[in-house]
Amino acid sequence: MRQLEKTENLTYTIPMQHSSPGKGEKSESEENMKDSAMDRKENQPETEVILHDPVFAPRRESCRKVTIPSSLRRCRETGRIDAFRLQWKPGDPNPPHIFWDSDVAKVLEGMAEMLMLHPDPAMEKELNDLVDLVVSAQQKDGYLNVYFTAVEPEKRWSNLSDHHELYCAGHLMEAAVAHFRATGSRKFLDAVCRYADLIASVFGPEPGQKRGYPGHEEIELALVKLYRTTGEKRYLELAKFFIDERGKSPNYFSETERQLSPEQLPNRQAHQPVREQEKAVGHAVRAVYLYCGMTDVAVETGDPGLLNAAIRLFDNLTERRMYITGGIGSTSIGEAFTEDFDLPNATAYAESCAAIGLALLSKRLLDATGGPKYADVLERVLYNNGLSGISLSGDEFFYANLLEVNASTPEHGVTCRRRRKWFGCSCCPTNYCRFLPQLGRFCYAASADLLRVDIPAAATVSAGTYKVRIDGNYPYDGAVSLTILRGGRFTLSLRIPGWCEHFSVEVNGSAAESSSATPSRWTMTREWKSGDRIELNLELKPVLIYPHPSVAADAGRAAIQRGPVVYCMESVDNPGIPPQSVILPADPDFRLCRAEGLPEGTVAIRCGAKAEFSPDSALYRKTPPRFRDVDVCAIPYALWQNRGESSMQVFLRVAPPEP
Amino acid sequence: MRQLEKTENLTYTIPMQHSSPGKGEKSESEENMKDSAMDRKENQPETEVILHDPVFAPRRESCRKVTIPSSLRRCRETGRIDAFRLQWKPGDPNPPHIFWDSDVAKVLEGMAEMLMLHPDPAMEKELNDLVDLVVSAQQKDGYLNVYFTAVEPEKRWSNLSDHHELYCAGHLMEAAVAHFRATGSRKFLDAVCRYADLIASVFGPEPGQKRGYPGHEEIELALVKLYRTTGEKRYLELAKFFIDERGKSPNYFSETERQLSPEQLPNRQAHQPVREQEKAVGHAVRAVYLYCGMTDVAVETGDPGLLNAAIRLFDNLTERRMYITGGIGSTSIGEAFTEDFDLPNATAYAESCAAIGLALLSKRLLDATGGPKYADVLERVLYNNGLSGISLSGDEFFYANLLEVNASTPEHGVTCRRRRKWFGCSCCPTNYCRFLPQLGRFCYAASADLLRVDIPAAATVSAGTYKVRIDGNYPYDGAVSLTILRGGRFTLSLRIPGWCEHFSVEVNGSAAESSSATPSRWTMTREWKSGDRIELNLELKPVLIYPHPSVAADAGRAAIQRGPVVYCMESVDNPGIPPQSVILPADPDFRLCRAEGLPEGTVAIRCGAKAEFSPDSALYRKTPPRFRDVDVCAIPYALWQNRGESSMQVFLRVAPPEP
Repeated sequence: MRQLEKTENLTYTIPMQHSSPGKGEKSESEENMKDSAMDRKENQPETEVILHDPVFAPRRESCRKVTIPSSLRRCRETGRIDAFRLQWKPGDPNPPHIFWDSDVAKVLEGMAEMLMLHPDPAMEKELNDLVDLVVSAQQKDGYLNVYFTAVEPEKRWSNLSDHHELYCAGHLMEAAVAHFRATGSRKFLDAVCRYADLIASVFGPEPGQKRGYPGHEEIELALVKLYRTTGEKRYLELAKFFIDERGKSPNYFSETERQLSPEQLPNRQAHQPVREQEKAVGHAVRAVYLYCGMTDVAVETGDPGLLNAAIRLFDNLTERRMYITGGIGSTSIGEAFTEDFDLPNATAYAESCAAIGLALLSKRLLDATGGPKYADVLERVLYNNGLSGISLSGDEFFYANLLEVNASTPEHGVTCRRRRKWFGCSCCPTNYCRFLPQLGRFCYAASADLLRVDIPAAATVSAGTYKVRIDGNYPYDGAVSLTILRGGRFTLSLRIPGWCEHFSVEVNGSAAESSSATPSRWTMTREWKSGDRIELNLELKPVLIYPHPSVAADAGRAAIQRGPVVYCMESVDNPGIPPQSVILPADPDFRLCRAEGLPEGTVAIRCGAKAEFSPDSALYRKTPPRFRDVDVCAIPYALWQNRGESSMQVFLRVAPPEP
Repeated sequence: MRQLEKTENLTYTIPMQHSSPGKGEKSESEENMKDSAMDRKENQPETEVILHDPVFAPRRESCRKVTIPSSLRRCRETGRIDAFRLQWKPGDPNPPHIFWDSDVAKVLEGMAEMLMLHPDPAMEKELNDLVDLVVSAQQKDGYLNVYFTAVEPEKRWSNLSDHHELYCAGHLMEAAVAHFRATGSRKFLDAVCRYADLIASVFGPEPGQKRGYPGHEEIELALVKLYRTTGEKRYLELAKFFIDERGKSPNYFSETERQLSPEQLPNRQAHQPVREQEKAVGHAVRAVYLYCGMTDVAVETGDPGLLNAAIRLFDNLTERRMYITGGIGSTSIGEAFTEDFDLPNATAYAESCAAIGLALLSKRLLDATGGPKYADVLERVLYNNGLSGISLSGDEFFYANLLEVNASTPEHGVTCRRRRKWFGCSCCPTNYCRFLPQLGRFCYAASADLLRVDIPAAATVSAGTYKVRIDGNYPYDGAVSLTILRGGRFTLSLRIPGWCEHFSVEVNGSAAESSSATPSRWTMTREWKSGDRIELNLELKPVLIYPHPSVAADAGRAAIQRGPVVYCMESVDNPGIPPQSVILPADPDFRLCRAEGLPEGTVAIRCGAKAEFSPDSALYRKTPPRFRDVDVCAIPYALWQNRGESSMQVFLRVAPPEP
């Protein structure tokens, strides 16, 4: 990888060393946040994380070999690439759509991220050619949007609430930053800076400027990225403006730009100022992208009020509105949150992009505060809904990630029983292009004096002077060994996950106490030498997880979880036993086994259960069902629907314990 | 009531006398249908059914005193009435909507139906004035539609698939027939005949005619009504044309008029010819209105193939796609059927209009074939979803009738937690205006030589020479006594409901055997004398009803039913016990009791149960829930949400029986 002049600071706060909060404690103190922000160092040495674990590494490879090439092909076939030639004329078929730019941008970002992990001259050339094309569509004034240049040029900035104009700009900025980091070329970066400068001239608090903000958030976090990359403070200020202006009175969407009704504002998180928002509402992807932007701006500007607002929304979201899989957004209507505890399984939305957004948010809050709950949510998302949206083959996608599909589940729009190759609105496939290459960055945070192991997926991590190899089959095996390949003085900080009840750490064969007072971290600072070995053992056992009794959809049910992995019962492994017919005992005899037809090393779980049946075919009858003994098999939720058409259920009925 | 020259023949087939099918037997033989059709008598003596039962009679009264006046007021306030003045001009606010005519027509039909039961000069004058206004909007060529006269006159007949033009025409026809029957005036009837004549000139198989049919069915059954009232065969022929043309190739909606996609055709039942359709698909109200028209045309033309198609669709609908409440349509998306056994409770649609339509269909198939299953479905609808859509006060309405509402249930559009006063698309409130006055007609079918008691709700029934008074508190009490007030020779045919396991009949104090061989009917033909008493005793006991195991939403659950009445647990009666937390024992100790705050005579049911609780507030936890003993109360589903905000559940968890 090339040496960058200025790099995006991936681990810009490392608060565990001085004020890491205890497990379960609130970590969102003003002081903590301020310290974190001050801790931030510019020009930190480059961190490299190369995964070789059994779950993420194969996904990265299928992304490189399949997802990126196939997404590029779809973008070409559907006209998304050629649209940047600006040759569409009224009357022509297939007009560019208002969100096409973002799809292309996400693929470009993915290509750049992948190049950072895996140099590939052919891919680099293709990326550069595409960047040339994209930049060629930039107008003299810096404007860069296909739809509002070729199709409706007179409508620029006229419908922020619905038309994704600033959203597309944000994705271009993210792509440009990644391109700069991967290639060292400033071409794309400079182009989006000119665009950002134009946007900063159009929007702002000054007379003659629009006091608007995007209906679909994303540009806020992108502008902070641009600020971190270029050091240009005006991008941070614009991000802060977009965040603080949102929901203020007079309301831009309902009073200034358009006449959206009060009921339409929450879908865009514009019903009240963000600092006053208590509940995660509206379109789930928009919401988490906004909260990411809030966190970024809070950290960069030292604004504990804004950070606390983001934390409050994260808490509501994850403690009242999140599926056990890390999925968020309970309804397809508006792709949105609904009410606390409304988590239907068969009509879940749980959009893949929303899970990706929740991973981005959790990672930001983890970095900003060190709070263990953020790492727990991050891990939940990464191993479950974060991967269920894409097939093992890398070219089929769920938009909505249901938690229950039975023989009668209807398909509506993007709510599908089977993954599809592409969608008219193909945000999820293109989001995977950029998400999968970044998985390592979610697991490890490394700086010259700290290696923070948040998720101990097997990898090689280097930063500062040191290089560490992490081995094991996590998350299927709780035994993780770390070998110092190249030494140095640094703090090793191992996360003890919230799901883990017993763990041990040995250093060079001897039990080693943590120097941290917090139970969610094992830490040790010393001069590590090449060949030093650290053995982390996290006890992994299958358990039943019961949802809060207010989750009516799950009444009488529990999910099987082992470590961070949520399991589901898929009909492929259980012929003749419809998942809804199964009743687990209160204390199942869980047994680990091989999962047929799934990747080597995947751990499936079996146990005895009862299954309901009835010889009666009537729709309604007085005869109670009968029961038979069965042995059922559960597989990781993220891997379902990789072996053909099937039914699936995460939450299974559990027999009440004997009185 | 005035003597009519020609009356709609309410009991046009009475097949029980000669070929009544046995309980559970298929009754749809070609021969049976032909006999039935031949049995039809013109100018049959007027039948009068005046209910005084505890369930239907108060609904009729609240309809008369509240629903009709309040619906009329809403129609006025929203501009629906004044729209018939045709004074709307482009640029004016509040343009008439494409379905407004149908709302007004249904209120007029309701007023006319009510006048037949309850003479009321003031209401009659108001009705006649409104009829004058409606008829004044008729164009010289006979056309009568506000929207396509005042708003988009150039678009007449241009978008049958979506624009409700023929649907509105059908409702005007039904209203006009009722007005004629109630008042003897031919004014409205003649106007709709002129309109029907115009429609018959526009649509048909001849060169130059459109081979179209409505996207929203209704006119088919209305045309048969018009035929039965006027004897004009061309209306029957037009109904038959609309039915047989539907779904033929080239497809009118996808190839002739517009380019609807193959996926859009089933919502309009236009994906294949109706005689080939095997499953009830698409928009539920449209579907059942179509099947009504198919049945009517089949009976009138002696077309067993068409009748069998209607029966096949009824079977699929009621044996695979019907809620226990008689509700149909499992999703708000397209207000439609989905898949066999897909019957979600919390996201049910079960539109009030669809239940009304299923009552209309069941009644038609019962009359056409005598099959007991049609009476069972009819009764299920009438006592449950048919009434849940309207408040006891008569002025609040459910559009969608959920079977489960908990503290977290979100509201989307017309899917509400509480009944509302009116809707933008207010089909359901106005449908109740015409449905409730007709309840007696659903219970009894009477002719000079037969009194068919299908639902023994207390009433006075007269036909031919005889008059019979039926007393009792059915459906809350199974003891029904019939007293001959005025005698005559006729067959008394008492339905033995499908839910009833034991019954007895006494005539003048002595046990009396049925002369029918079929277990679903007790019949006796004799010269009945004034003062003769018949005591019918239907054993009523609360039972648990289990859905088919393929209904995943109900896995591990059952509903309480007593006679035809489906019960629900409403939070009002069960403070501190969320319905989803309750587990009924497999053999509950059911006890009948008074239902607080509900009408005198309403029977509630109590039983002991377990309730789950948890002191833990985490969304996901390893700790299993704990249980406590509770005593729960269930009330009739049709009466829920009449005592303020509440949660409610029809299907309750049931403990598996001991092994």
